[in-house]
Amino acid sequence: MRAARYYGKEDIRIEEVVEDRCGENQVRVAPAYVGICGTDLHEYLGGPNLAPIQPHPVTHDTIPITLGHEFSGTVTEVGSAVSSIKLGQHVVVQPTLSCGLCTACASGIENVCYNGGFIGLSGGGGGLSDSIVVPSRAILLLPPNVPLRIGALVEPLSVAWHAISAAPLTPSSTVLVLGGGPIGLAVVQCLVALHTKKIIVSEVSKTRQRFAREFGAHHALDPKTYDIVAISRELSGADGPDVVFDCAGVPASIDTACRAVRARGTVVNVAIWEKEVPFNPNTMVFKESKFTAVIGYQRGDFQAVLDHLADGSLRPEKMITSTIPLEDLVERGVKALIHDKDSHVKILVEVGGNGS
Amino acid sequence: MRAARYYGKEDIRIEEVVEDRCGENQVRVAPAYVGICGTDLHEYLGGPNLAPIQPHPVTHDTIPITLGHEFSGTVTEVGSAVSSIKLGQHVVVQPTLSCGLCTACASGIENVCYNGGFIGLSGGGGGLSDSIVVPSRAILLLPPNVPLRIGALVEPLSVAWHAISAAPLTPSSTVLVLGGGPIGLAVVQCLVALHTKKIIVSEVSKTRQRFAREFGAHHALDPKTYDIVAISRELSGADGPDVVFDCAGVPASIDTACRAVRARGTVVNVAIWEKEVPFNPNTMVFKESKFTAVIGYQRGDFQAVLDHLADGSLRPEKMITSTIPLEDLVERGVKALIHDKDSHVKILVEVGGNGS
Repeated sequence: MRAARYYGKEDIRIEEVVEDRCGENQVRVAPAYVGICGTDLHEYLGGPNLAPIQPHPVTHDTIPITLGHEFSGTVTEVGSAVSSIKLGQHVVVQPTLSCGLCTACASGIENVCYNGGFIGLSGGGGGLSDSIVVPSRAILLLPPNVPLRIGALVEPLSVAWHAISAAPLTPSSTVLVLGGGPIGLAVVQCLVALHTKKIIVSEVSKTRQRFAREFGAHHALDPKTYDIVAISRELSGADGPDVVFDCAGVPASIDTACRAVRARGTVVNVAIWEKEVPFNPNTMVFKESKFTAVIGYQRGDFQAVLDHLADGSLRPEKMITSTIPLEDLVERGVKALIHDKDSHVKILVEVGGNGS
Repeated sequence: MRAARYYGKEDIRIEEVVEDRCGENQVRVAPAYVGICGTDLHEYLGGPNLAPIQPHPVTHDTIPITLGHEFSGTVTEVGSAVSSIKLGQHVVVQPTLSCGLCTACASGIENVCYNGGFIGLSGGGGGLSDSIVVPSRAILLLPPNVPLRIGALVEPLSVAWHAISAAPLTPSSTVLVLGGGPIGLAVVQCLVALHTKKIIVSEVSKTRQRFAREFGAHHALDPKTYDIVAISRELSGADGPDVVFDCAGVPASIDTACRAVRARGTVVNVAIWEKEVPFNPNTMVFKESKFTAVIGYQRGDFQAVLDHLADGSLRPEKMITSTIPLEDLVERGVKALIHDKDSHVKILVEVGGNGS
């Protein structure tokens, strides 16, 4: 079968590989659509980061590994001990890998697992292939009215759902989102699904500002034009937004987040950071504000997103700005996102899609 | 009457001043015992900081102002509109000044008031005088079995009570306290009052380690000898303490706090910071931990401390390492704390005490 294999920095190859065997508690999925993620770009540009150069503690794999962790597909084989999943069902895969042994896993915080990783980044196969075998517990059923194309968006939407679930939101909240990339835009959509009263996005790119408005942000403002702290305070009608989501992860964003948030408000850090940043805790101290960090997602976040897709309160179709075949992964996928990221939200790779 | 007046850096004078008049909603208190606080030292060494050089928005005072914000005393005059307070009662004063007009005050977060301050630091008189007039709402009654000397400790204990109230503590919690100064030691005592299972203190000074143990810390460890992250993880029997209180406020403490706390644990920042510090949010991201800042206290914190003093679950007598007369404030008080801080926890100034 075909698979997109990551060998190292700037080295992704579409190759023929042998299919894995499907064990008794496993399910084989034929991937339909696969999203390309910022994490994939980081591996391509500067990796290996997450991709294992020593045997991964859960998968025992090392590079080359198959890429693709945001995907939907069709069940093509079911292990003998699996009764809840049927051949032909449309599914999504929750790609979290956890060891089940560490103190984080013991506390049920599998997304923090100290030995963890992701299917499609840490070995264990990936969505960018004609076939993948995963544990049955990684499978969630796609509701009948949700097409496979949309299924590929469940993973990034689940990152956002997990993030908004960490914030004390009410329908009357005013929220500031820093950064209008794919995750910032997913956060906006999840906030809209919760009927959040006021959503303000800070984003430099005009194209991404337009996306933010299309997805339901009430204000999308350029931080080069506006003093975001001052204007978000003004728009909040109080002393600042109740919650600030930092989806940018740059020195300016953590400073803006901490200065903008209201007294006793919450900053939710969704970003992953490249290095230390200067930080003045007094920006939080004198307002008694909180800084909460989130990472990844849990199964419940996937299910919540699927439920909201099924009832129409999440409508992420416009996130898909391009669909390409597997053969074009690097040139029209990875490189397009690197060189023209503002024009794109999410590029999908159609591996075995049937137009649905 | 006598008053200790702050004129500026290294300039505190014991002078004769005229008593303020007692308004209809006010109460006159003859201060008995007054604690000297780290904030007082900062004003002496490098101020004016909080001491107003322009008219303070609440008190309208400028320096010179009378010092003393941690104090107990006896009621000597009661305004005509005050019915709940009687002549001769032993009381403590909650020194928070708030404007009642800003958005923080409107939300009931008076300790964050954007125009706020403290009696004894921002004008409005101070405890280091023979008489002070305060609003009746600033008064709390000292329980009959709590002596006036102990009353002077209610303010620093309330800072600690406010801090521990911000943390998700249970009796089975493991807690790490960074810094064994007066506030760190007050935090230890409040944790003991809550019957916290395991209290670990990180403190360089041997004297302060001894104080920490005397107040009930289960472990008091020198961070120059021990890897505090590793040993607090080991002692927690899990992947780290549930809660870390940063009472030190130095670059090493925020880093230790964030690295030590368990997955989904909480760092409570009690310190006030002098400047920006290097911070790597990833130390929190990959564990989904929280950083919560607190400042000052509210009336409820004072009442909680008074209740715990009355029932004996707080026994802070040993905090008092010296008692001096008002005339010796600078030489045996301020300078003793500056030059020999490790030997002292709290120096009390006896202004009008009667030995009780």
